[in-house]
Amino acid sequence: MSETQEEPQGIAGDELLRFIDRIERMEEEKAELIRDIRDIYQEAKSNGFDPKVMKEIVKLRKKNPDEVDEEEAILRLYKQALGMV
Amino acid sequence: MSETQEEPQGIAGDELLRFIDRIERMEEEKAELIRDIRDIYQEAKSNGFDPKVMKEIVKLRKKNPDEVDEEEAILRLYKQALGMV
Repeated sequence: MSETQEEPQGIAGDELLRFIDRIERMEEEKAELIRDIRDIYQEAKSNGFDPKVMKEIVKLRKKNPDEVDEEEAILRLYKQALGMV
Repeated sequence: MSETQEEPQGIAGDELLRFIDRIERMEEEKAELIRDIRDIYQEAKSNGFDPKVMKEIVKLRKKNPDEVDEEEAILRLYKQALGMV
């Protein structure tokens, strides 16, 4: 905290506000990005693609192939255990 | 879907990949922003501010004052009902 000013309870209000302002600008950018991403899924949907399955693909591409293989093997096991196959 | 190509089950793989690529670029930007926001909170913490309370302030500033007043009134009611005051 800055020591060059006197404020209630020793809080540097202007310094705090600068942090808050920076965070709010970035939160606004984040909100815009989220809207843009939603728009792309919508555009893809208009072109005949299924947004839900695309989200699954995006998730899968983030993982490495070994991780995917392992999860699929465990999923098969669980399905067998529950009589789902 | 594009009709100018032949692909398995009629899926336009290149078109789909373009959508996925756009989404992944934006998701990466979003991840960077989230890291940046975390860094600012960390910087503020180093300067003596409490990140948890700052997040509360950011949330409060998003709402309009009437909304805040109403929620606070309801919160008081609930606290009274539960003997917390």
